[in-house]
Amino acid sequence: MKKTIFLIHFIAISLFLQAQDLTQYVNSFIGTGGHGHTFPNACMPFGMVQMGPVTNNVGWDWVSGYHYSDSTVMGFSHTRLSGTGIGDLSDWLFMPRIGGFTLNWGSNEKPFPSWRSRFSHTNEAASPGYYSVLLSDTKIKAEFTATEHCAVHRYTFPASDSAHIILAPSVPIGTYVGSSASIPWSSMKWENDSTISGFRISFGWVPFRRVYMVARFSKPFFTYQMTSGGKPGWLVREKEHNFLIGSVYFKTKEQEQISVKVGISAVSLDNARANLQAELADKNFEQVHTLAVAAWNKELNKIQIQADDSTKQTFYTAMYHAFIQPNNIADVDGRYRGADFEIATAKNGKYYSTLSLWDTFRAVHPLYSIIQPKVNADIIQSMITHQKVAGILPIWTLWGAENYCMIGNHAIPVITSAILTDTKGFDYEEAYTAMKATSTVIHRGSDWDILDKYGYLPKGIVGESVSKTLEIAFDDWCVAQVAKKLGKMADYDFFRKRSESYKQLYNHQTGFFQPRDKNGNWTAPFSPIDARYSNGFTEANAWQYRWSVQHDIPSLVALTGGNAKFEAKLDSLFSMSSEVIGGQRDISGLIGQYVHGNEPSHHVAYLYNYANQPAKTQKWLTKIWTEMYSNQPDGYAGNEDCGQMSAWYILTTLGFYPVNPATGIFDMGRPFVKKAKINLENGKTFTITANNLSDKNCYVQKIKLNGKVIKDYKINFCDIVAGGELFFEMGK
Amino acid sequence: MKKTIFLIHFIAISLFLQAQDLTQYVNSFIGTGGHGHTFPNACMPFGMVQMGPVTNNVGWDWVSGYHYSDSTVMGFSHTRLSGTGIGDLSDWLFMPRIGGFTLNWGSNEKPFPSWRSRFSHTNEAASPGYYSVLLSDTKIKAEFTATEHCAVHRYTFPASDSAHIILAPSVPIGTYVGSSASIPWSSMKWENDSTISGFRISFGWVPFRRVYMVARFSKPFFTYQMTSGGKPGWLVREKEHNFLIGSVYFKTKEQEQISVKVGISAVSLDNARANLQAELADKNFEQVHTLAVAAWNKELNKIQIQADDSTKQTFYTAMYHAFIQPNNIADVDGRYRGADFEIATAKNGKYYSTLSLWDTFRAVHPLYSIIQPKVNADIIQSMITHQKVAGILPIWTLWGAENYCMIGNHAIPVITSAILTDTKGFDYEEAYTAMKATSTVIHRGSDWDILDKYGYLPKGIVGESVSKTLEIAFDDWCVAQVAKKLGKMADYDFFRKRSESYKQLYNHQTGFFQPRDKNGNWTAPFSPIDARYSNGFTEANAWQYRWSVQHDIPSLVALTGGNAKFEAKLDSLFSMSSEVIGGQRDISGLIGQYVHGNEPSHHVAYLYNYANQPAKTQKWLTKIWTEMYSNQPDGYAGNEDCGQMSAWYILTTLGFYPVNPATGIFDMGRPFVKKAKINLENGKTFTITANNLSDKNCYVQKIKLNGKVIKDYKINFCDIVAGGELFFEMGK
Repeated sequence: MKKTIFLIHFIAISLFLQAQDLTQYVNSFIGTGGHGHTFPNACMPFGMVQMGPVTNNVGWDWVSGYHYSDSTVMGFSHTRLSGTGIGDLSDWLFMPRIGGFTLNWGSNEKPFPSWRSRFSHTNEAASPGYYSVLLSDTKIKAEFTATEHCAVHRYTFPASDSAHIILAPSVPIGTYVGSSASIPWSSMKWENDSTISGFRISFGWVPFRRVYMVARFSKPFFTYQMTSGGKPGWLVREKEHNFLIGSVYFKTKEQEQISVKVGISAVSLDNARANLQAELADKNFEQVHTLAVAAWNKELNKIQIQADDSTKQTFYTAMYHAFIQPNNIADVDGRYRGADFEIATAKNGKYYSTLSLWDTFRAVHPLYSIIQPKVNADIIQSMITHQKVAGILPIWTLWGAENYCMIGNHAIPVITSAILTDTKGFDYEEAYTAMKATSTVIHRGSDWDILDKYGYLPKGIVGESVSKTLEIAFDDWCVAQVAKKLGKMADYDFFRKRSESYKQLYNHQTGFFQPRDKNGNWTAPFSPIDARYSNGFTEANAWQYRWSVQHDIPSLVALTGGNAKFEAKLDSLFSMSSEVIGGQRDISGLIGQYVHGNEPSHHVAYLYNYANQPAKTQKWLTKIWTEMYSNQPDGYAGNEDCGQMSAWYILTTLGFYPVNPATGIFDMGRPFVKKAKINLENGKTFTITANNLSDKNCYVQKIKLNGKVIKDYKINFCDIVAGGELFFEMGK
Repeated sequence: MKKTIFLIHFIAISLFLQAQDLTQYVNSFIGTGGHGHTFPNACMPFGMVQMGPVTNNVGWDWVSGYHYSDSTVMGFSHTRLSGTGIGDLSDWLFMPRIGGFTLNWGSNEKPFPSWRSRFSHTNEAASPGYYSVLLSDTKIKAEFTATEHCAVHRYTFPASDSAHIILAPSVPIGTYVGSSASIPWSSMKWENDSTISGFRISFGWVPFRRVYMVARFSKPFFTYQMTSGGKPGWLVREKEHNFLIGSVYFKTKEQEQISVKVGISAVSLDNARANLQAELADKNFEQVHTLAVAAWNKELNKIQIQADDSTKQTFYTAMYHAFIQPNNIADVDGRYRGADFEIATAKNGKYYSTLSLWDTFRAVHPLYSIIQPKVNADIIQSMITHQKVAGILPIWTLWGAENYCMIGNHAIPVITSAILTDTKGFDYEEAYTAMKATSTVIHRGSDWDILDKYGYLPKGIVGESVSKTLEIAFDDWCVAQVAKKLGKMADYDFFRKRSESYKQLYNHQTGFFQPRDKNGNWTAPFSPIDARYSNGFTEANAWQYRWSVQHDIPSLVALTGGNAKFEAKLDSLFSMSSEVIGGQRDISGLIGQYVHGNEPSHHVAYLYNYANQPAKTQKWLTKIWTEMYSNQPDGYAGNEDCGQMSAWYILTTLGFYPVNPATGIFDMGRPFVKKAKINLENGKTFTITANNLSDKNCYVQKIKLNGKVIKDYKINFCDIVAGGELFFEMGK
């Protein structure tokens, strides 16, 4: 019986995969040009390993280690950040090479190794679970595939008496406040004639980041060296240093392939070994690659669309980018290193990190709530666990540790959304305890004593005072809603009241949120296009933060003076000059003062709905969707930001997006594909049909949910996951 | 009754101190010139804190942070290494300054801060427990004194509206294999208007070195900043970064004094606070200074000599340098961080680190066995504890961790000496277990598998193969002696046999220990003056390592061909050319090929005794004692090496020195003072009298111990600590 079910299941999956190989539409070079900061590496959905090329490791456009404009490669390493504005990771750089036994690195600070090779994009290929490149200078072909915790390297060498593979643990990626991440200590050990193990610790975007590594080579070395401070050490069995390079040597025949299986772990060498054993012991390169493709197809098929190839490429690459992170940093045995850098065991076997929450609370987690509910619940469980150790919920966690990047405490809306939509998978009381602690215990970026004293965050005492006041107000509203749902009415009153603090900063005379000093005076000079941090905003100006009241748009409309004035203000936003004072690199993809390249604007086009002007929402969405995305290397208007740019695109393509991402309510835009099918984890399907859609018929005439007309331009999470059909009648 | 005893005790100490203020003879600038690598800082005997100036932090002659040739100072910091060849420490640099709010550091790699000030030696003073300097550029006087775990700073400012004190945790001292020690992470926190706390971790000579710090200022700041990556951050409450600088600001009147009490800890911030509370809460600068002077006088008075002032200066500075380390790194509550970087509690409340054992096993520990038996026993207990965590006894430990510097495992002779002389204070079986494990478990620098396979360490498989074979043979002999004493006869046989491995490397044709390859061939080319590491020796050549068989000089004499040939070989050593091929900086203080500036030669002048030529021992000692030491900044012939250069001087001044430091037997030289009194911890005294001593009467005519003539030119540890009188009749 069981066998039969398995067989049927297998056939079903096989047929499905044959029918829908969506990985063919993923172009993992999208975002590697411009300022997208993505990478073309081989990886698994939510995996710890992202294996691929490093073309450079310093500079803002190299925080992912790769930029499409480059033509040389310094090596291949195992981990990455996707789309971020700050760099780290790139653990355990390997490089195959022939000829010569002398390595010249340069210095730890300015690594321009002599072993760099040129390459050409015409000899490069990348797809989900696979990356390959031909190194022009040495004629070595390098190919990579990955499991969750491991990589398989396959190098095809020319004939050589001194073919070698370099191992360089000491190459950080990092631009943290202008200085490189530091790897002050690494060690390597020759375990036997085909195994090297090692350890490295780095202090970059987060401190104390440990990566243990075991590498098993398919062919025994004939010699090896470990080098520190520039001095070669032949046959050194074990070495540790702040600048360490090893290399293992082989005699190769023409077109001889040498493969390396590499397991990593944040926990221990034994765990790196166990990860390797569990995921790679009995598999070769092709088998691993096939499994990776299947895993990606499973995720990509969660939404099937009818569209032309270029839209499919943009869409499925967005899906791909949305699932590269968060990363499960727990090993196969469920152990991980937490916020205190100590070893712990994950409750559900998974521990998710790389939580870029200031970005991803907006659209990534709402998207996950629909198509990745299990992952989303496990992420929330990881957040709650983090709070028990760190005292506060994650702000921006990397490799389990907090880096305090950006503002607010936006794990709160993610958890709020899950509780308000009755999501299972974590304890609500535990979650609320964590939310309340985060919102009451003074911590970096959250000066509750000052907020409670003044009723807003005054300029001169707190930096980025306006942005912080606004975003904290939103978080407070979230805490209030959960308090209410759990019957904690005193807490509800406290946080509901504090959630209105943003009103203190609204200057009725100018129509903007503006900084006030501790005496309540509006600080001068003030310009709504001034984006210098000293003006009180975070990576933005007053025009861009004018809309950051996601929890109470009706009040924002009222503050503005009613629907007409609100509409006019939105019109100005989109049509005015794009001049920004103190222009910051994160402010990109401008339409007027609307900034699609950064997150505070992401919900703004949908706000016309709230002034009863849905057609204008649709108009601007058409422009943004068309102009700010493409299937080219510079296909994102700014940093991809851990899935947020992609999640905006995915949801907007389907026709809805959450202005307030904490409620489970999605606001209607317009669909960009004729048909889309969401395959839900509960086995149900939700289909979206856009009748009469064309380039010209880009306005919504009527919306029906399961045959019933929607008039308020909203759809609820519950209606989506219940399965059903959303019907758009399109017209001019 | 108790009160009376206390009073008597107090009077006795007071009288004693009045009678013998020996700190007046300590010139802590000795060794700060040339290549002595000492420092003039304020410290306590064996204390954790050494507080004083940093004139530079890079370069071989700045491993202690100070060189007498300098004329500017970049700040004042809390910890140091004394006399080493590799740098680290210099924790928590402070600098007082006036004028201007902008700090310009340069970069983390090349720190040349704008706040450097000039100074002159004429405005500088240093004595045990005290250092002061007038900063010429700012007219600020900086004074320092210290307890074991804390420092007191006292800055006398001119009138200023912007007097400030800079705190820079990110300034390492380090020359480890050419690169600076790295401080990848530090943090500071403004606790209140007169308290700053902080943390820093460094990876230098040892990794994972943590120093927590609490600083209490005598006057509230009127503002403060914390700066990272060059950007000032006013009123930032808390910050962490890989390059962090803070400063606190005061308005000062003319000659206003601001003092800072600083406590440090390797364990935690709470422990730093507890150290500060315990040692400084109720004491001012003068009180702390007085206690430090008293503590030093107690140690210095353990040997009282009659001599001219310049000899007294050299002698008591040597005593001072001999007791600056090892450092008790346990906090006032007995907790420390051990070899695994974890927190533990010290058995006797003390945990000693800074164990430069390749140097100090030779004379420092034999000296300690006589005048610091309690400290020596606690050091041995610390070593045994270390082995339980690390698997092997310390080789070179710093701040609790192993740096694997130099060769051999010379904790073994230190423990052996203690066991063979029936010293109390640790468990012999535990000690033996640790010694045996160290001598059988393969570890860095000790390839037991290779030694056991070949019967010696072959060149081409192991580096520094001759030096290692010789020094390991000595350690093996020690293990054998302890095994024998504890009745472990199988072990005794094994180690006794292995202790003869050195004979495999004696080339009878050349009369030198030489490298052999794995097939037993002498490797060529060979030159006895070749000091390149590739030749098989450690910081030395074959001439210098020819004598490193301390455990069996009679066999060495026999190998050489008997007394006459041995004497002739020694004559050649002292009289031949000083040319060294591949000259290394550690080879300094040469007389022929005898090298007083480095340790392998230290017992060699005493070897004439073994060829029945004690007069020649005395002759060369006279030359070494006279020429290689002085009371000047360049008063040491090479690195002072954690007390070893000083201990040689102290023992040799008294008239005896241990050729084999593991036995408790001391070999007779000649005394250099007319009278010396050793005040033993057991209350007894041992006096040394040199009758008829003069510059010309520099040869020993007769030696009597308690009236009984000594003929074998040896004196036993037991005879010394029993108290008594050693009488030398001197003549021409």
